[in-house]
Amino acid sequence: MIGMSETEFQRARSTDAKEARVKAILASAREQAKARSVREVTLTDVAAGVGMHKSTMLRYFETREEIFLRLAAAEWADWSTDAVRMLDHLEQRNPAEVAAVLASGLVARPFFCDLLANAPLSLERGVSSEAVKSFKLVALASAGAVADALQRAAGLDSAGARNAVATATGMAGALWQMAAPGTALRQLYETDPELGHAVVDVEPRLATILEALLRGSAPGSAPPR
Amino acid sequence: MIGMSETEFQRARSTDAKEARVKAILASAREQAKARSVREVTLTDVAAGVGMHKSTMLRYFETREEIFLRLAAAEWADWSTDAVRMLDHLEQRNPAEVAAVLASGLVARPFFCDLLANAPLSLERGVSSEAVKSFKLVALASAGAVADALQRAAGLDSAGARNAVATATGMAGALWQMAAPGTALRQLYETDPELGHAVVDVEPRLATILEALLRGSAPGSAPPR
Repeated sequence: MIGMSETEFQRARSTDAKEARVKAILASAREQAKARSVREVTLTDVAAGVGMHKSTMLRYFETREEIFLRLAAAEWADWSTDAVRMLDHLEQRNPAEVAAVLASGLVARPFFCDLLANAPLSLERGVSSEAVKSFKLVALASAGAVADALQRAAGLDSAGARNAVATATGMAGALWQMAAPGTALRQLYETDPELGHAVVDVEPRLATILEALLRGSAPGSAPPR
Repeated sequence: MIGMSETEFQRARSTDAKEARVKAILASAREQAKARSVREVTLTDVAAGVGMHKSTMLRYFETREEIFLRLAAAEWADWSTDAVRMLDHLEQRNPAEVAAVLASGLVARPFFCDLLANAPLSLERGVSSEAVKSFKLVALASAGAVADALQRAAGLDSAGARNAVATATGMAGALWQMAAPGTALRQLYETDPELGHAVVDVEPRLATILEALLRGSAPGSAPPR
C-alpha cells in the first residue's frame, strides 16, 4: 500500500472488513428470502445464515426491515436499469411490446415482487426515518427513470408514464402475493375445484393489464370533455 | 317462545350467545384496526377490547388472521353490493364515470383497503385451508358481481372486466399502504422537501389509472394483430 500511512492502512482494512460483513448479511437475507419468502425470514435467521451473533449484526443494521429495505433499493435500481435499456432498444414501440417488457422484467424478479408488496406494508414501518428516506430516494429515482423511458417508448405524458410505473410495480407486488408459486395457498387454489379459476398467472395477467393501461393512457385516446 | 321445547330453547339461547360473542369479537377487531391499522392489532388486543380471556376467544377463532379474514369477506361483500348498485344506476356510462364509482367506493372504505393489502400477504397464510376457502369464495363472488356490472356499464368483455376489478382492488390496497393518512410515513413524505412529490393522493390517482385502463380495455380499442 504505497503512500498510505499506517493509520490510513488500518482504516482501509477496517472499512473493507465492515463492507465485507455488510455484504455477507445482505447475501444471507437475500438467499433465505428467495428460498422461503421475505416475511418468513427473521433477524435471527439472517444472523444464523452468516454465522454472526445477533448483537454483532445489530452494529450494521438496526432491524430486519432495514436489511430488506437495502435489498429492495438494490432490486429497484437493477430492474430500472434493465427496463430502461430494453425500452430504449425496442424495435416495435406499441403498447403490447412495451407492456411485455415491463411485465417480463418484473416477473423475472420474484424476490423484487415479494419486496414490492412488503415494503410499504411492513418494511418502511420498522426503520428510522433516515433508512426510509434513503430507500425511497433510490426507489423514486428508479421509478422516474423507467417513467422517462416510457415517455420515449410509448409516447405517454409525464403523469401517464408515472401511473404506468406505479401500476406495473403495484400490481406485480399484489398479483405475486396472490399467486406465489410453491406456497400452500397456491396449492390449495390449484387443487380445489371451486377455487381453480382463481389461480392467477402473473405474467400474462400483468401484461394484459399494462397493455390496456398504456393504450388508454396515450394522449388522444380520451375524448375531449 | 311458543312451540319450543326446553331443549330447543336452550340451544337457541346458546346459539344466540355464541353469535353475540362472535359479533363482539369482530367489532373489537374492526374498531381497533380502523383506529390504528390491521397489522398492529394483535389477538391480545382483540381479547382485551371485548373483555374476554384469550383462551375463551380461541374457542371462536383460531387466530387473529381468521378474525380479519372474516371481516375482509364482509367488506368485499359490502363494497361489491354498493358498487354494483351504483354501476347499474349510472347515467353516463363512460370510462371516467365508471372509474370514479370504483375509486370512490374503495377509498371511502379505508379499512377494506388496508385488508386488501394484508389478505394475500399475511392473513391467508395464518389460517386453515377451510378458513382461506370460505373467505376466498366470498371474495370471488363479490369480485365476479362487480365484473358482471362492469360488462354492463362499460361494455367490457369478461376478461377485461375481471382485470379491471383486480386492478381496482389491487391498486387500492397498494396505494393505500403507501399513503395511509396519519402514519409517521405519510408525515415524513409530506414534510421532507426531497420526498414531497412522492405523496400519493389515492382517489384521483386510482381514478385516473382505472379510467385509462377501462378506455384501453374496451373492445375495439386494440388494433387488429
